[in-house]
Amino acid sequence: MSEDVKEIALQQAKQYGGKLEVVPKVTIDDRRELSIAYTPGVAAVSSAIAQDKKLAYEMTTKKNTVAVVSDGSAVLGLGNIGPEAAMPVMEGKAALFKRFADVDSIPIVLDTQDTEAIIATVKAIAPTFGGINLEDISAPRCFEIEQRLIEECDIPIFHDDQHGTAIVVLAAAFNSLKLIGKTLAEVKIVVNGGGSAGLSVTKKFLAAGAKDIVVVDKAGIINEAEAKNLAPHHAAIAKVTNRQHLSGDLQTALKDADIFIGVSAPGALKQEWIKEMAEKPVIFAMANPTPEIFPDEALAGGAYIVGTGRSDFPNQINNVLAFPGIFRGALDARARKITVDMQIAAAKGIASLISEAELSTTNIIPDAFQPGVAKVVAAAVSEAVLTTV
Amino acid sequence: MSEDVKEIALQQAKQYGGKLEVVPKVTIDDRRELSIAYTPGVAAVSSAIAQDKKLAYEMTTKKNTVAVVSDGSAVLGLGNIGPEAAMPVMEGKAALFKRFADVDSIPIVLDTQDTEAIIATVKAIAPTFGGINLEDISAPRCFEIEQRLIEECDIPIFHDDQHGTAIVVLAAAFNSLKLIGKTLAEVKIVVNGGGSAGLSVTKKFLAAGAKDIVVVDKAGIINEAEAKNLAPHHAAIAKVTNRQHLSGDLQTALKDADIFIGVSAPGALKQEWIKEMAEKPVIFAMANPTPEIFPDEALAGGAYIVGTGRSDFPNQINNVLAFPGIFRGALDARARKITVDMQIAAAKGIASLISEAELSTTNIIPDAFQPGVAKVVAAAVSEAVLTTV
Repeated sequence: MSEDVKEIALQQAKQYGGKLEVVPKVTIDDRRELSIAYTPGVAAVSSAIAQDKKLAYEMTTKKNTVAVVSDGSAVLGLGNIGPEAAMPVMEGKAALFKRFADVDSIPIVLDTQDTEAIIATVKAIAPTFGGINLEDISAPRCFEIEQRLIEECDIPIFHDDQHGTAIVVLAAAFNSLKLIGKTLAEVKIVVNGGGSAGLSVTKKFLAAGAKDIVVVDKAGIINEAEAKNLAPHHAAIAKVTNRQHLSGDLQTALKDADIFIGVSAPGALKQEWIKEMAEKPVIFAMANPTPEIFPDEALAGGAYIVGTGRSDFPNQINNVLAFPGIFRGALDARARKITVDMQIAAAKGIASLISEAELSTTNIIPDAFQPGVAKVVAAAVSEAVLTTV
Repeated sequence: MSEDVKEIALQQAKQYGGKLEVVPKVTIDDRRELSIAYTPGVAAVSSAIAQDKKLAYEMTTKKNTVAVVSDGSAVLGLGNIGPEAAMPVMEGKAALFKRFADVDSIPIVLDTQDTEAIIATVKAIAPTFGGINLEDISAPRCFEIEQRLIEECDIPIFHDDQHGTAIVVLAAAFNSLKLIGKTLAEVKIVVNGGGSAGLSVTKKFLAAGAKDIVVVDKAGIINEAEAKNLAPHHAAIAKVTNRQHLSGDLQTALKDADIFIGVSAPGALKQEWIKEMAEKPVIFAMANPTPEIFPDEALAGGAYIVGTGRSDFPNQINNVLAFPGIFRGALDARARKITVDMQIAAAKGIASLISEAELSTTNIIPDAFQPGVAKVVAAAVSEAVLTTV
């Protein structure tokens, strides 16, 4: 991290005392305005909602507010630093929601890392919000927490660490496939990293039509034959991936692969392995801040397209392309859930922002600041909504 | 309620979709600003707080943010209308926090009315906030919920329905006593209403030095002799009030009383009973919107000073005079608790806003919009803080 950026971030945090402000939309400057904003006027609004709960989506901040909820157990590269220290990240995320999609968002950090307590807390506060963005909760707890909340809440629940990057990689893959002239169904994909992001990438790609995915974790290729020795979430993914029952290491997995997706560790991809991949290999090296392989090295090794999580190289896989528009779309359509179909629609929306004329190996994905990203994503997501509240 | 105010409140609610907006204090308009507000810059702030948790009070929104928490069980005059319908009231309250004391405030409405679940939820979200304002939670649950949270949280917890009005009535009483030339220790006070507000008024006045208080509930004067038949919170108050062991009805209680404090029901105070009170009787008739007795009727019956909860008569007992400044003072001083001493200090601060020259029977308490109220209250409260975080 540049010392400069670090210093400015610290200085701003002290200067502003946090990045968010909660501002009334109405003026309260005399008794009449007070009587409208608070008692007795407000009773009319409460009475109306008491008679028809759905009016909360028209008449309260529920309409446009998403909570960013974290227990501080898996924060950025910092790990389990607890709720107070997680706050700056959650504030930043909330600021991005407003900046990119005009979604009002507030951080909620939790004084518990117990799965049941987290579920109970989020369910208890859910009537306040139009949606919940789970953030920086460690695996494997994050799987059960998200799944249970999706089942038990009537508002959209979305764990961005699992799905955000997956959706943007999928968008990048859609555009890369146009350049290499293949379809998702015919390519071989290697996902390196069996954590929450890797598993979500795998599931998202399968749902979008991929047929041949090999997942590689620290212990090597995940193989159904060894399901008994695997953690439950790995055993489950083993059943739907690696249909050739490969075993071995990443190098073995990469033989004839079209796409490498790294959500693993710095330097995990060796240059010489790229040569054993299929023609026009596509490399998404998303370990942050140091990727599995640097773009220049990958290109020198024969890579055709390289994407990373970094803003200082072309093709940045940045989840800020996804989550603001996804929640914008979900809120606009009053979606009950953010389904996989909605997530795939978001990926297609992101991909559509690069026109055929602009599309090139160094321009497969829009920049975060390209105007209209969230709008296009939101529209795509809204269209894919099936169940509304 | 004027139809006009009601209509405008409904129309505004629809137009704005809620009264609050969450706005970033920093711009995020290019990659550099993004890297400061979010990753990687934000990691420096998180790391600093991970090393010293107290920095959360300097570097995050915890510093200036209060949650307005309700289960929607006792909302205004509307009763148990549930969390969604309670939202407009909580939003209004949050708007007042910002308007009057620059406190950022967010509503949290709960999908539970279970005492233990509410306590667990508030404890779980507490690291997010600098303080918690409990709102519109029905008695007797509100007593245990507040007490337990005060004991178990390290941030200030304050149930405004219990204490807010009590603090402002106490302020009004301080100034009324100057006009009738008596001290709090020598007057007889009748509190009509044994709900949460009435009990809080009683405790606050006792803590401030009152010696002779008689509490009257629906069943009549609360008397220690009948403690066995009383609810626990009434039995407790019976031990410290009504030292003459009066029994009977409100009329009996009022004989020779100096101050009537009504937190009861419309029309509960009969004009002819005022004649049996002490010289220069002081009447605080705070049932809302229809008081225990209207000011003109009370004055015609011999009342010397009359205050109500209404803005269309002199001497409005308005809790907006108290809660913004109280939390402002508590946050500024990083108080761990809002103690009774801090609350009495707030009452004295409010009373001090009326100069001796301005003080009259129709001007015992400042107007909500008098500039500087929250500042004076906050300073008084900060000075009374003993335990800081």
